[in-house]
Amino acid sequence: MSDIQIDEHGCLRHLLTLEHLGHEHIQRLLDRAAALRDSARAGDPLPALLAGRTVVNLFFEPSTRTRTSFGLAARRLGAFVVDFDIANSSTSKGETLEDTLATLEAMHSDAFVVRHKQNGTPALLAAHARRAAVLNAGDGHQAHPTQGLLDLLTVRDHKGRINGLTVAICGDIRHSRVARSDVHGLAALGAYEIRLCGPQALLPSPGEFPGCRLVPDFDAALEGADVIVMLRIQKERIEHLPGLDETTYFARYGLTQARLARAHRDAIVMHPGPMNRGIEIASDVADGPQSVILEQVANGVFVRMAALAELLQR
Amino acid sequence: MSDIQIDEHGCLRHLLTLEHLGHEHIQRLLDRAAALRDSARAGDPLPALLAGRTVVNLFFEPSTRTRTSFGLAARRLGAFVVDFDIANSSTSKGETLEDTLATLEAMHSDAFVVRHKQNGTPALLAAHARRAAVLNAGDGHQAHPTQGLLDLLTVRDHKGRINGLTVAICGDIRHSRVARSDVHGLAALGAYEIRLCGPQALLPSPGEFPGCRLVPDFDAALEGADVIVMLRIQKERIEHLPGLDETTYFARYGLTQARLARAHRDAIVMHPGPMNRGIEIASDVADGPQSVILEQVANGVFVRMAALAELLQR
Amino acid sequence: MSDIQIDEHGCLRHLLTLEHLGHEHIQRLLDRAAALRDSARAGDPLPALLAGRTVVNLFFEPSTRTRTSFGLAARRLGAFVVDFDIANSSTSKGETLEDTLATLEAMHSDAFVVRHKQNGTPALLAAHARRAAVLNAGDGHQAHPTQGLLDLLTVRDHKGRINGLTVAICGDIRHSRVARSDVHGLAALGAYEIRLCGPQALLPSPGEFPGCRLVPDFDAALEGADVIVMLRIQKERIEHLPGLDETTYFARYGLTQARLARAHRDAIVMHPGPMNRGIEIASDVADGPQSVILEQVANGVFVRMAALAELLQR
Repeated sequence: MSDIQIDEHGCLRHLLTLEHLGHEHIQRLLDRAAALRDSARAGDPLPALLAGRTVVNLFFEPSTRTRTSFGLAARRLGAFVVDFDIANSSTSKGETLEDTLATLEAMHSDAFVVRHKQNGTPALLAAHARRAAVLNAGDGHQAHPTQGLLDLLTVRDHKGRINGLTVAICGDIRHSRVARSDVHGLAALGAYEIRLCGPQALLPSPGEFPGCRLVPDFDAALEGADVIVMLRIQKERIEHLPGLDETTYFARYGLTQARLARAHRDAIVMHPGPMNRGIEIASDVADGPQSVILEQVANGVFVRMAALAELLQR
Repeated sequence: MSDIQIDEHGCLRHLLTLEHLGHEHIQRLLDRAAALRDSARAGDPLPALLAGRTVVNLFFEPSTRTRTSFGLAARRLGAFVVDFDIANSSTSKGETLEDTLATLEAMHSDAFVVRHKQNGTPALLAAHARRAAVLNAGDGHQAHPTQGLLDLLTVRDHKGRINGLTVAICGDIRHSRVARSDVHGLAALGAYEIRLCGPQALLPSPGEFPGCRLVPDFDAALEGADVIVMLRIQKERIEHLPGLDETTYFARYGLTQARLARAHRDAIVMHPGPMNRGIEIASDVADGPQSVILEQVANGVFVRMAALAELLQR
Repeated sequence: MSDIQIDEHGCLRHLLTLEHLGHEHIQRLLDRAAALRDSARAGDPLPALLAGRTVVNLFFEPSTRTRTSFGLAARRLGAFVVDFDIANSSTSKGETLEDTLATLEAMHSDAFVVRHKQNGTPALLAAHARRAAVLNAGDGHQAHPTQGLLDLLTVRDHKGRINGLTVAICGDIRHSRVARSDVHGLAALGAYEIRLCGPQALLPSPGEFPGCRLVPDFDAALEGADVIVMLRIQKERIEHLPGLDETTYFARYGLTQARLARAHRDAIVMHPGPMNRGIEIASDVADGPQSVILEQVANGVFVRMAALAELLQR
C-alpha cells in the first residue's frame, strides 16, 4: 500500500495508509488542512480548488459520518460528488469491482473515496485506476488514514506538537483501523510512548504494533497520558467475550472522571465516534472540558479537503 | 415549542410550529416567499442567499415530497444539501440522536430539516443545537409549519386575505399535523370560522382546537365555505373504523362536484398530497378549475426558501 | 412515441425513441455531443447551459450506471439534479404516477429522466407533462435512445460514418432495448447491413426488426463485420433455456479473440455494460485493442448533455 500511494516524483498519488507515508507528507497535509480551516474561520469563501472535478463515494460498508464528511469537503471546494449506490449497482449484478471503477472513471471521475470491509480493497482499486486518485475511507481493520490525520491535527492544535507525547489508546485495538492509523501517524511524528489497552482478547498479536506498549490495565495506561483515544466497542464483540458484558466493560475500560484524573491534568480525550455512552466512555467525560471529540469531527472535514486538494491538484 | 423558536431579540431562531408564532412572523415569511416567487417568475436568477451554507435533511419518516421541496429550496438559494441516510446512520448503531446532531453540526451544518413520527423531536433537537437552526418538516400529529405557511400563502393569493374567511378542513383531523398547523396559521391571521369535519372517531378531542367548530356532517361543513382543505386519509385507518370502507368513506366524506357546489362559488379546493383519488376527493374536483393543489406545491418551495433564508441570515 | 417527441415546430420536445426520429435530429444530437466533448478535452470549462434548471431522475428500475451518467451530464452543465427515491415515494403510498410527475413539475422541474420496466411509461409521462421534457432512460425492452446515440457516436468516431457499415449485434435481442435503439439509429444513418444473432429463443419475432438479417450462427454473423455489439445476457435467462448454461453460452455466443478474427480487421467491439466476463465476452477481448467499451461510457455523458441541452434550451 505504501509504495503505490507515492508517484515517481515523490508526490502523493493515492491516500491509502499513513504507514511509511513519511512525516513530510503528513505534515504537509496537516498544514494544508489548518490553512483551509483558518480561511474558513476568517469567514473567507473557501477556494474552489476542485471546481469541475468529480469525486465518487464508493462505500461498501455503511457510514454516514465519514461519507458526509468527505462529501462536504469535496463540495465545499467546488467538486461534484456522486454517492454511488452499491446496493443497486452493477457490482450487485455480477460486474467486477474493477469494471465498476473503470466505468465510473470513464465518466471522468477524478477521485474515489472507498470504504470496504476487506483489507486491501482501496489498494486493489488504486492499482487499477488509470488517472483517478483513490482515498481510503477505511478498509477492514487495516487503515483509516484520514481519521489518523484528523486525530493528529486535533492533538497538534492542543499540544502544539506530537513529538514527545504519551498517548493511550483503549478499546478493541485488534480490530481497529483507527488505532492502526493513529499509531502510524503518531509514530511518524515522534510520539514518545503509545500505550495500547483493552481486554486481552482484543489486544493485537505480539509484534503487530512495533514500538507500542501493551498495557492491559486501564489505570496504568492512563497514568500521566497527554492524549487519550477511546475506541468504540461493538456491543456484539463484548457479548462474545467470556465474563464481559456492558457493565463489566464500563467498570474495567470505561473512561470516567475518576479515571481521567490519573492522566496528565491537561490531557485531551478523543473518540472517533459514534460513541456508546456509558460503555466505553462516561457521558460527563464525553461532554466535559477535556473532551475534544467535536473538534475531531470539525477537523475531519478540513483534513479531507486537504487530502482531496493534494491528490487532485497534482 | 413556541418559546424556543424565538430568540431573545424576538427573531425567529427555529421554525417548529405556527402555534403562538404571532402574525408578524407569519406575515413576514409569507411576504418573503411571495417576493422570491415574484423574482423567479420575472426570470431573475434567485439570490444566492444561502451560498456556502449547509442544510441537512434529517427525515426519520420517509417523505420524498417534502424532502425534495426543502432540498430544492435550499439548493436554489445556493446551499449545500445533505440528505442524511438514517437507515445506515450512526443513530442506527446506537448513537443518540443528540450526538448525531452534534456531529453533523460540528461539520458546520447550518440548518436541520427534521421529520419524525414522534411529537416533539424537532423541538428536542432545537434545544440541543448550538448554532444551527431546526426546521420542523412534520412531527407526529403535532405540527407541519411549512405546510401551514404554504397553505396560507395559497389562500392569500386567491382571496387577498385570510381575515374573515370560512375554512372547512375535512378528513382525519385527529391524527393530522397539517390540520393543526393550518388551524394555528388561519387563526393567527384572523379567519372567521374554521370547521373541522370527519368521521367521529377521527375528530379531535373536545377542546383541543379552541375556536374551531366540529361539524360532523360534510355537507354542513361545506356550506358557504371560502376554502376547503381535504386531508389524505390513510387506507389502513378507514379499515379499522367499524362500518367504513373506501366506498362508504367516499360517499360520506369524498369531495365531489355536487358537494363542492354547496361551498361559496369562488371556493378553492386544497389538498396537502399525496391524494387518494376516489377516496377523499373525486378526480374531476382534483383536476377542476377550483383546485389549487399544484399551486400549493409550487408555493411550498418558496415558503421553504423564505424560512431557510430567514433563519440562516440572522 | 415518435409523434409525441417532436413539437409543432419540428423541434425535439421529449426524447423517447430513435424510431422515426429522423436522421437530422440524430445527427444534430451527435454533433452537439461531439462539440461538448471537444470543449471538455480542450480543458475549457463546460458551458452552464442548464444553470438554474432542475432535472429529476425517476428510476423505477435500479441502474446506477445510466443514472450516474445522466446525473453527471446535468450537473456538469449547471443543473440541479434530484434523484427521486421511488421506494419511499408517494407513488409507493398509492399516488398515481401522473400525480407524482405533476407534483414534481409544480416544483419547477424542467426534465424527467425516466427508466421503467414497462414499455411506454416514459411516453405516458410525456403525454402528461405540462412544460417539462421527458427523457427515456430505458423502458421495458422497447427503447433506450441515449444508449443508441452513444453507440452511434462511438461508431462514427472510429469509422467516420455509419453509412455503409456492417454491424453484428449478438445476445438476447428479443428482450433488449439497446438492440432496438441501436437498430433504429443505425438504420436512420444508413448502415448497410445489421445482423442479429443469438439463441433461437432470444431472437425477435419475425418482422419485428424490418431490414435486419437474423443470423443464428455467431461465426456467420461476425464474418466481415465492421462493428460488433455484444449484449449483456442475464444469467437467469440462460438457465431457463433448455440445453444452455453459462459454459455452452460462451462456447456458442461468447466473443473470443479467435472469433473476433472473422470480423473486419479494424472491427470495433462494443458492449453496453455491465459485462459478464467469460459469458458473453472473453476478458482479453473486453480489454483488447479493438474494444471501445470505455469510450462508449465516456460518450454517454456527452450524449446526455447534448440531449438535455437540446430539450431544455428550446
